[in-house]
Amino acid sequence: MAKVNQNYLRLPGSYLFSMIGEKVRRYQEQHPNADIIRLGIGDVTQPIAPEVIQALHSAVDEMGEAKTFHGYAPDLGYGFLRSVIAGMDYQNRGCDISAEEIFVSDGAKCDCSNIQEIFSVDNKIAVCDPVYPVYVDSNVMAGRTGEYDPASGRFRDVIYMPCTKESGYVPQLPEEVPDLIYLCFPNNPTGAVMKKTQLQEWVDYASRHGCVILYDAAYEAYIAEADVPHSIYECEGARECAIEFRSFSKTAGFTGLRLGFTVVPKKLEVEGTKLWPLWARRHGTKYNGAPYIIQRAGEAVYSEEGRRQVLAQVAYYMENARIIYDGLKAAGYEVSGGVNAPYIWLRAPGQMTSWEFFDHLLDQAHVVGTPGSGFGPAGEHYFRLTAFGDRQNTIEAVERIRRL
Amino acid sequence: MAKVNQNYLRLPGSYLFSMIGEKVRRYQEQHPNADIIRLGIGDVTQPIAPEVIQALHSAVDEMGEAKTFHGYAPDLGYGFLRSVIAGMDYQNRGCDISAEEIFVSDGAKCDCSNIQEIFSVDNKIAVCDPVYPVYVDSNVMAGRTGEYDPASGRFRDVIYMPCTKESGYVPQLPEEVPDLIYLCFPNNPTGAVMKKTQLQEWVDYASRHGCVILYDAAYEAYIAEADVPHSIYECEGARECAIEFRSFSKTAGFTGLRLGFTVVPKKLEVEGTKLWPLWARRHGTKYNGAPYIIQRAGEAVYSEEGRRQVLAQVAYYMENARIIYDGLKAAGYEVSGGVNAPYIWLRAPGQMTSWEFFDHLLDQAHVVGTPGSGFGPAGEHYFRLTAFGDRQNTIEAVERIRRL
Repeated sequence: MAKVNQNYLRLPGSYLFSMIGEKVRRYQEQHPNADIIRLGIGDVTQPIAPEVIQALHSAVDEMGEAKTFHGYAPDLGYGFLRSVIAGMDYQNRGCDISAEEIFVSDGAKCDCSNIQEIFSVDNKIAVCDPVYPVYVDSNVMAGRTGEYDPASGRFRDVIYMPCTKESGYVPQLPEEVPDLIYLCFPNNPTGAVMKKTQLQEWVDYASRHGCVILYDAAYEAYIAEADVPHSIYECEGARECAIEFRSFSKTAGFTGLRLGFTVVPKKLEVEGTKLWPLWARRHGTKYNGAPYIIQRAGEAVYSEEGRRQVLAQVAYYMENARIIYDGLKAAGYEVSGGVNAPYIWLRAPGQMTSWEFFDHLLDQAHVVGTPGSGFGPAGEHYFRLTAFGDRQNTIEAVERIRRL
Repeated sequence: MAKVNQNYLRLPGSYLFSMIGEKVRRYQEQHPNADIIRLGIGDVTQPIAPEVIQALHSAVDEMGEAKTFHGYAPDLGYGFLRSVIAGMDYQNRGCDISAEEIFVSDGAKCDCSNIQEIFSVDNKIAVCDPVYPVYVDSNVMAGRTGEYDPASGRFRDVIYMPCTKESGYVPQLPEEVPDLIYLCFPNNPTGAVMKKTQLQEWVDYASRHGCVILYDAAYEAYIAEADVPHSIYECEGARECAIEFRSFSKTAGFTGLRLGFTVVPKKLEVEGTKLWPLWARRHGTKYNGAPYIIQRAGEAVYSEEGRRQVLAQVAYYMENARIIYDGLKAAGYEVSGGVNAPYIWLRAPGQMTSWEFFDHLLDQAHVVGTPGSGFGPAGEHYFRLTAFGDRQNTIEAVERIRRL
């Protein structure tokens, strides 16, 4: 008699963004004339850069000719993409990362949720609160989090690291030592960053205690300030204690193309077992590579012209961020983020809960954001807006919120 | 202190096809002039059909314009693809499957290896022997198989169902009742099929005992005979006990484009828990959808012209299968498969082991195949050749083997 994975049943409700999508769909059905502006889910709106489009077209042509057709991709990604990533994202920044240490995939979300598999079920995880739900949910599914406590909105066996206004939305080193530490900087959802000296403390802490840091750097391209590290490997000793996740989704608008990569240093080991072969084994067994044409698209992002074009997109979104930040601040909201990240984190007015503010904003301004409490209890009363809308919608959304 | 998933360390060696790739790479390095013909890994060689190429180009153009740009795909796939699949692959064959029950993904390999996650770790699995390694390996990683016994080449807690010449390479209903049953027909690696009456017995067995059948129908498009079912849902009661996996890799040459889907009927439940929401939760949490352009390519496969073109590709490969089958039979080999499947299963001459024959063939004929023992102990002394080469190479490979 087959039995289900009971851990799945511990997940409260559905995945946050699926739930928001459903709520908005229902509202739109009931109010077909409402002109809804979506600044909720972190999805981009700018079209794919011309240089990337051109690379896609020529790769598609290659697939149509027997001589240039590409079947199964190499397990860990094509060499042409892995080397340009290693060179431009790491070696050029002084990080000692080789092409062999780059694992190409169909996105950071998959990698972030799959990485826990190579670790034992009895590892204890630490996450920021608020936090991108995927880190916790994937560990719930694996049975690593214990029971959910509805009173606190927390799982009993997870170490939560509150990120509050008082600490600049950056976590403190935990007193109870975890085994795996999820960090995401620039942060989703708060838009906060760690300076290099701060991140170095985490690397030192992990090295001292034998923890592995799972570092999500999906928003790296949005960093504007000089003392903010783009990669954890800018820190001394990170090759021995950290795995890094990167995405093309926000860097180059690939949310609908699906491309990302994970860095597992060859030196990184746990109890004398190297992690590189484990992750390689997972890739080889449970994954079949990102499509050739998408990997060629990724390569085009690193060309001189491609780079110029995607940087212009990032600048476009960051101007949106400035508009939201300044507009809401002027309207009296408590706001943060938005300087090195495409997310603005704001406090709901008065004693409104995050979901009350969500409904209020949807109903009164036809603007969709993400309730802070959806990212964890410490996010209660907060709200996330994204800078990924188009300019006109962003300006209009800010106007509507100011008029409330 | 972080700890690794010890189950990974139970996996003997590397993933079969990664290992073969490595062996061939090394041989080619040492023999740079050897003209190696690859009939090992089941990778296609025909270019993508013109109708699909055209769909790719226009979808790429859409991604380059703000008005037609597509960001994150719906979690479970685009409606346009899910409905055409439900209609053409199922409803047209009299199977009661709706678009909502189709989960689009980046390939059957991922789905086949991920599906075990929604089941409890203490489920006992049954697999054919020989078997596509992914079913077993993904369960080893999850800790569902017990220790590996090098003497028998088997994991202690897995029910192996031998598929031998005597039984026409079709398994017998197991005496010890498993919880999850992996079946793949047309079969990889043997090329064997089950008739509808045979498959119905499995569905009845599963219904009787509360098992779930995980049915891999990746080679469905190669079925030539009338009484062979294309889908398990052609059998009475399968909606209540079976999940089906399909792939565009072999149907339309998408090995390098990555597209597949899984059918989880809404009615299917285990201990009173429906599986549809669990698999939907996994998709929403750990996956971000197949690329828009690839889903449009998938849709084009179902257009009238697209269908004609991919059927011609299938016919091309099946002519290769005939050439291999007839050629080797004429040369005195014991061969099977190749009629409803793109795989030919042959016995190595004399008392040669599968790997001995692999080395012999590589060294003497410069032909790469797959050792049967790589698929399980019952595959020892057997060897798999694929029909996915191009015509000239296939003819040449058969000639070389005949000359041995």
